Amino acid sequence: MRIEEDCIGKLPVEDNALYGIHTVRAVHNFPVTKERMDPLLIHNLIQIKKAAAAVNFKAGTLTADKQRAIIAACDQLLLGRHADSFIVPAIQGGAGTSANMNVNEVIANLAHQLDPDVMVHPNDDVNQSQSTNDTFPTAGKMALCAQLPGLLGAIEQLSQALLIKSKRYQDAIKVGRTQLEDAVPTTYGRTFHAYYQLFNRDLARVKSAGEHLRVVNLGGTAIGTGINATKYYQTHIIDALNANVHLALQSAPDLVDATQNCDGFVEFSGAMKILAADLSKFSNDLRLLGSGPQSGLGELNLPAKQAGSSIMPDKVNPVIPEVVNQVAFEVMGNDVTVTMAAEAGQLELNAFEPIMLRALLESERHLQRAMQTLVENCVRDVSVNRKRCADQVAHSTITATVLSPYLGYEVTTGLIKEALATHSSVPALLRERHLLVPALIDQLFSPAGLTQPRDTSISMTKQA
Amino acid sequence: MRIEEDCIGKLPVEDNALYGIHTVRAVHNFPVTKERMDPLLIHNLIQIKKAAAAVNFKAGTLTADKQRAIIAACDQLLLGRHADSFIVPAIQGGAGTSANMNVNEVIANLAHQLDPDVMVHPNDDVNQSQSTNDTFPTAGKMALCAQLPGLLGAIEQLSQALLIKSKRYQDAIKVGRTQLEDAVPTTYGRTFHAYYQLFNRDLARVKSAGEHLRVVNLGGTAIGTGINATKYYQTHIIDALNANVHLALQSAPDLVDATQNCDGFVEFSGAMKILAADLSKFSNDLRLLGSGPQSGLGELNLPAKQAGSSIMPDKVNPVIPEVVNQVAFEVMGNDVTVTMAAEAGQLELNAFEPIMLRALLESERHLQRAMQTLVENCVRDVSVNRKRCADQVAHSTITATVLSPYLGYEVTTGLIKEALATHSSVPALLRERHLLVPALIDQLFSPAGLTQPRDTSISMTKQA
Amino acid sequence: MRIEEDCIGKLPVEDNALYGIHTVRAVHNFPVTKERMDPLLIHNLIQIKKAAAAVNFKAGTLTADKQRAIIAACDQLLLGRHADSFIVPAIQGGAGTSANMNVNEVIANLAHQLDPDVMVHPNDDVNQSQSTNDTFPTAGKMALCAQLPGLLGAIEQLSQALLIKSKRYQDAIKVGRTQLEDAVPTTYGRTFHAYYQLFNRDLARVKSAGEHLRVVNLGGTAIGTGINATKYYQTHIIDALNANVHLALQSAPDLVDATQNCDGFVEFSGAMKILAADLSKFSNDLRLLGSGPQSGLGELNLPAKQAGSSIMPDKVNPVIPEVVNQVAFEVMGNDVTVTMAAEAGQLELNAFEPIMLRALLESERHLQRAMQTLVENCVRDVSVNRKRCADQVAHSTITATVLSPYLGYEVTTGLIKEALATHSSVPALLRERHLLVPALIDQLFSPAGLTQPRDTSISMTKQA
Amino acid sequence: MRIEEDCIGKLPVEDNALYGIHTVRAVHNFPVTKERMDPLLIHNLIQIKKAAAAVNFKAGTLTADKQRAIIAACDQLLLGRHADSFIVPAIQGGAGTSANMNVNEVIANLAHQLDPDVMVHPNDDVNQSQSTNDTFPTAGKMALCAQLPGLLGAIEQLSQALLIKSKRYQDAIKVGRTQLEDAVPTTYGRTFHAYYQLFNRDLARVKSAGEHLRVVNLGGTAIGTGINATKYYQTHIIDALNANVHLALQSAPDLVDATQNCDGFVEFSGAMKILAADLSKFSNDLRLLGSGPQSGLGELNLPAKQAGSSIMPDKVNPVIPEVVNQVAFEVMGNDVTVTMAAEAGQLELNAFEPIMLRALLESERHLQRAMQTLVENCVRDVSVNRKRCADQVAHSTITATVLSPYLGYEVTTGLIKEALATHSSVPALLRERHLLVPALIDQLFSPAGLTQPRDTSISMTKQA
Repeated sequence: MRIEEDCIGKLPVEDNALYGIHTVRAVHNFPVTKERMDPLLIHNLIQIKKAAAAVNFKAGTLTADKQRAIIAACDQLLLGRHADSFIVPAIQGGAGTSANMNVNEVIANLAHQLDPDVMVHPNDDVNQSQSTNDTFPTAGKMALCAQLPGLLGAIEQLSQALLIKSKRYQDAIKVGRTQLEDAVPTTYGRTFHAYYQLFNRDLARVKSAGEHLRVVNLGGTAIGTGINATKYYQTHIIDALNANVHLALQSAPDLVDATQNCDGFVEFSGAMKILAADLSKFSNDLRLLGSGPQSGLGELNLPAKQAGSSIMPDKVNPVIPEVVNQVAFEVMGNDVTVTMAAEAGQLELNAFEPIMLRALLESERHLQRAMQTLVENCVRDVSVNRKRCADQVAHSTITATVLSPYLGYEVTTGLIKEALATHSSVPALLRERHLLVPALIDQLFSPAGLTQPRDTSISMTKQA
Repeated sequence: MRIEEDCIGKLPVEDNALYGIHTVRAVHNFPVTKERMDPLLIHNLIQIKKAAAAVNFKAGTLTADKQRAIIAACDQLLLGRHADSFIVPAIQGGAGTSANMNVNEVIANLAHQLDPDVMVHPNDDVNQSQSTNDTFPTAGKMALCAQLPGLLGAIEQLSQALLIKSKRYQDAIKVGRTQLEDAVPTTYGRTFHAYYQLFNRDLARVKSAGEHLRVVNLGGTAIGTGINATKYYQTHIIDALNANVHLALQSAPDLVDATQNCDGFVEFSGAMKILAADLSKFSNDLRLLGSGPQSGLGELNLPAKQAGSSIMPDKVNPVIPEVVNQVAFEVMGNDVTVTMAAEAGQLELNAFEPIMLRALLESERHLQRAMQTLVENCVRDVSVNRKRCADQVAHSTITATVLSPYLGYEVTTGLIKEALATHSSVPALLRERHLLVPALIDQLFSPAGLTQPRDTSISMTKQA
Repeated sequence: MRIEEDCIGKLPVEDNALYGIHTVRAVHNFPVTKERMDPLLIHNLIQIKKAAAAVNFKAGTLTADKQRAIIAACDQLLLGRHADSFIVPAIQGGAGTSANMNVNEVIANLAHQLDPDVMVHPNDDVNQSQSTNDTFPTAGKMALCAQLPGLLGAIEQLSQALLIKSKRYQDAIKVGRTQLEDAVPTTYGRTFHAYYQLFNRDLARVKSAGEHLRVVNLGGTAIGTGINATKYYQTHIIDALNANVHLALQSAPDLVDATQNCDGFVEFSGAMKILAADLSKFSNDLRLLGSGPQSGLGELNLPAKQAGSSIMPDKVNPVIPEVVNQVAFEVMGNDVTVTMAAEAGQLELNAFEPIMLRALLESERHLQRAMQTLVENCVRDVSVNRKRCADQVAHSTITATVLSPYLGYEVTTGLIKEALATHSSVPALLRERHLLVPALIDQLFSPAGLTQPRDTSISMTKQA
Repeated sequence: MRIEEDCIGKLPVEDNALYGIHTVRAVHNFPVTKERMDPLLIHNLIQIKKAAAAVNFKAGTLTADKQRAIIAACDQLLLGRHADSFIVPAIQGGAGTSANMNVNEVIANLAHQLDPDVMVHPNDDVNQSQSTNDTFPTAGKMALCAQLPGLLGAIEQLSQALLIKSKRYQDAIKVGRTQLEDAVPTTYGRTFHAYYQLFNRDLARVKSAGEHLRVVNLGGTAIGTGINATKYYQTHIIDALNANVHLALQSAPDLVDATQNCDGFVEFSGAMKILAADLSKFSNDLRLLGSGPQSGLGELNLPAKQAGSSIMPDKVNPVIPEVVNQVAFEVMGNDVTVTMAAEAGQLELNAFEPIMLRALLESERHLQRAMQTLVENCVRDVSVNRKRCADQVAHSTITATVLSPYLGYEVTTGLIKEALATHSSVPALLRERHLLVPALIDQLFSPAGLTQPRDTSISMTKQA
């Protein structure tokens, strides 16, 4: 064990460890979870360190030797080497300082290892022109942005799969249901199209919220005033970083604001929460429309993916929508966590970014994968039980709604009640009593008549 | 009492009542709260009825007499007459049908009263081409849009008041605080500017979410297929309505989708929730920075607005930020209500719009008024205790952070510890030991040196 | 207008107003809502003032004249007179000081009015030995306790109504459903009994949380140390109050703790939240089991309470469960509000009790009334469609689950698949192939065999 | 690869895998997270399998050979062997069927491996008399109960540590603060005692909610009717299980209810949520009272545990309370997840138990460890800055509150204003003007006079 010292005191550190005293303290202090800081966030912290070294060198505040050594170390780490050196826990106090220092220490030690002639200091060199308070949230946003295309792609996959279904079942008439009670008919084409539109809006919403994550406070250092950073660094760091990571990052117009306010995280969480609520509604619909096989609605055939019961033979359950529901509940809970953590920020900093980023990165990943399995294992192969749907429309009395413009709400009510009482059908009663011309009856009770605005071309409501 | 009948059966209705049986049933069935349906929502339902009558007449499906009578009735009601006829409770089952029927009944009866020769039917005439499922959410969105300028105006008032403070206190140096611990200095100019930026983003967010509320499903009737509406009506109703209400409403591109999905409500709620969280953080900061008068931070002087205690003489409390905090908690709770209600929608309809609209309209109003009192009774007259702030900076040791680029993190740590131990100051120690040239010391510890990026023009770090 | 003065300055007050300057300031400062402080809370504040006057007199710190006048004023107010003098808004900053001062002022002025010879001071006399910080939360808890029997009664009504249903439908066999898919059968007796048990637990939970509300901090004055209260007062105030209000209040063992911590409110909110979630699940089940009339599950007949649609004739919707769902969403949102407000307490006080009490009192009332309409307008008259339920069981293949112990999971799976493919039934296949003795087949597929643990008395699984 | 078959079809399974086809399907179907089902939950599922085998043997429905083999396999697994065979993901659809089948398959295959003469079937033998629907929630509750002593122990550790602090600082007078503004004094003895009481209540609350988790639905099989379980099994399984695990499990009085309702989970989550909110409030107080070192309140010295900044030398932050805050936000979010998942249960089952149990087990563990680090790394070594606290009291003007009973609220207000304006002190003014006898002044402004109820023994308020 080697002995290291910081402003708190001395502590032994394992001899071969690339990390140092700050990291060791964090592991002792934050034993809440064995889960380590998200590797993608660490990866992006390293990207920042690499870009900073280059810019600091150009600014004349870092020697060429140190720059070279730091960048060499970063490049190794970015390839995934020494990944087990990043041991600080995912849930940590200190606004991310431990994560930042873990990275600073590993880079400094590795740089020295790679070029023993160069001494690299974790704070003075690796962290030069930086503070946890700008690097950590920036790396967090970078991680979220890096995962974003996956999330957006999954939403798009889902909406496209629904569009295809919409076309395939354009003419598959079905009973509508409002408040779970039989309502006027629609088609599965429209049903799937409505979901398609819904997820298209989610796509736009998540994308738009994601754009705001690209605005970062890098260069603001401790509290956004940029103390200890050079103006050269402030001007060039974002470009240098973008050149490496291609995330289209932008510098916040007010770095003090951007350092203390986490509204962008709440906004992104909120966009994911809406997506989650929409996915949950959609999954509920799928499960309900596919319920049965004998005593349920039985309109949709969801692909069988898993024997459903350890005790009931041949039972098959809607396990894919169920897992989506659960992710939705998780994401909606995470949104409360993120909101409360953001609200709790004080003065020049929000110290609770670690829990926000953990929740956000998890929500982003889980939503993506949940939608992927939803598309691949459910939506793509779902089929409509056309016959059952058409039969239900044929036996429905609520279709008599189309008569209201001709006979009035009350006469129509009476006809429905009579049809139900006499086990007759409303069209039969209409014909029997010559209440409307046959052509109009045919038109009204045709699929088009039942599922579209009123066609007034057949003008006569009663026979002479 | 007169006797009315509907598909459920007969019921007595008070003789002079403009409402009818549907309304009476609702009052019996939904005794949860004595609070009635929001008057602004009712007002906008009436606007829809008025526009619908005009369009139906032009479509040839409503007689001129009925049209005239309906519009005359609507015009009276829009002036606020007979407001006590709208008695259905704010929290009601049935997806708003009771509210819609209350309006249909009152208009029908009033129309007949105004022109006794004309019989107007609540469903066949007043509700013609409509359903609760398109009129109710449309009226709800109209109510939210009608209140929106008030909300946006209040946000803007707040951000502008902060901008003014930012200019006034541009040079008022103060200690920064991260994680509640003393940090490098900033100015109140920057502090207020950061809030200004924050609320500017909120303004944009709420505005953008509000725009989406203008997209309505009117014309979709029962489930969005437009059954029983004429194509003429569908094509003209939005324009007719806009001509009266000036809310820039648009027809949703997919009315089936727009009838069943409430993501727009969750989005608007979410935008208000972010605003609420931001207001809460800002209020917390105001209360903390104004704490004292003797044993607190005492940096800000919040205007005294209320004797603070029934027992402690001369106590004054930050009552205005406190009321803002409470509205924020309410709005964040309302967001959970709205989200859960939206998620609970099933198939072709969400039956839970009444509770969503109640929560949304309340959040919108309370946020507006909370911000108005925040501006008028607090922000506008808040002042900075410049002397105390400057003294704190002068006595701070964390200002030594500026030395790190010159002396390194560890040497600086040592100097701070020594200054604290010897009750000296770091600049004094620097001068004593000739660690830096005096000009550099002066520059580094000047307000600009402490609150801006590093100026490297004084290049010598140590004396020869 | 008369001019009054407080530590902030002078202000005109309407001449006849019983309230004074503190109240007027509050109305100006807190315009968030026109809703006034809950009358039940005000009522209980007055009860406290009345009891305090009596105890202070006995302690020798209030004159007999003042005592008499204060009590006379309180008695009038407790009868509901001058109710329009309590004008402070429900949402207010200042931890309830405005509500407390409104009460102090009205009592002082009314006491003087009733006995012009006596001058009564709102702070020195009416508020003697008290602070907002003990009277306001105590009055809030009293209000909650006063409403509690109504809430508990409604839960009990619901559970008893379910018990009755459980007995009536003890033998009404029905298909069970897990994950919305057909499962082994049960009876409506068991189904209703399960709900009965659920709400019995809710009854116990809400009751237990309600007990904790009886523990109050009265006597702690400003921060729980009891400053300015006499020991006599501290010892006797709770008894004096209990003698008048019969709420079994108890003094908290640690008044400092009881003044600053609001966990009791969160606990009570949490108990109501569980009830809300349970009511929502129950309402969802009712709506689903009653769905139809033609294309739904159609097992339950929910009483028709409201014409369901303004456009679809004869539609009837489950409006009563729907209003319960909505109250549930509101209560679950309120729980977030209460939790956030409680968490936000700082040091010796939680300043956010007004919003907590508003949310709690509303949740308590709305839940009570929602359950009352649920019992009266739905559960009491719900009936089971026995024939449909029995038919579904008869046609179900999942009943073959009972064969697993005899034939094994895989053979049973095969039989089900074959029965489905050949439109046969599993018992028929069993008989055809002599796979089990007929007596065992009969027993297994009997109602008892399908809905109870396995009876092993018929021991032979296969014929010789 | 070996080929296995289930009711869905055939699938290859790795040759050496102890798990089978059901497990493999789950891994394909639920790729949401790489996190596997909680090992403690798996452990307890195995305990159930072991107890069930013994009871089924005694019931005569499982052969001695199979019993022996199953128990032998369970015993190995309970020692932790083959832990890598339990690969189903933590977030899964299917109400836990995949987790249950993973366990059934591993046990069946291992049993056969251990005794190749015996063929053990995962469903017919290992899962005999069971269903996922009773074993999975029972195992989940067992896991929560197994972790419970750790959680309760940590709460008790915290409350005891606070009691010790309370005694040590019994007489350390300090300024009280209400609404963050200076209030009448208290002592750190009382401050710490108030927290002690708070966490004592949390201890009782969590314990009480934990007791309800011991009530399980084992024996109810698929939907609580106990289908396919023998009566012998139903009667004996809980005792058999308790004999092995010592968790004092009890059979639910209504197994149908216990199978479908998750209120017990919401209750336990709610108890943890209150604890979380309380910990957050306490952590906020610690951070605020320890703020500084120069420009904060500086009353408490929190132990330095971590260099606080990568850029600001010698900065030390309250990292331990900060990590507690974050866990609190997580737990409060998890409570929303659990509540929503519980509310979403339908009819005879709640399919969303996996996400509930994941959230609950995580909350339980994180709270325990957060409190442990809070005690060990913060509370145990926190100290009071007695001098600073006493000085603040000495300079406070709000202490003049004690004069109100003698001089009245308004005169006292005037004295305070004068003292502030003249930079004098209130006691000095009193003495100067002979407003009270000196002995009374001394008593009133003594520590006891300022922090306790009024002592009326010195009866003269003014000198003759």
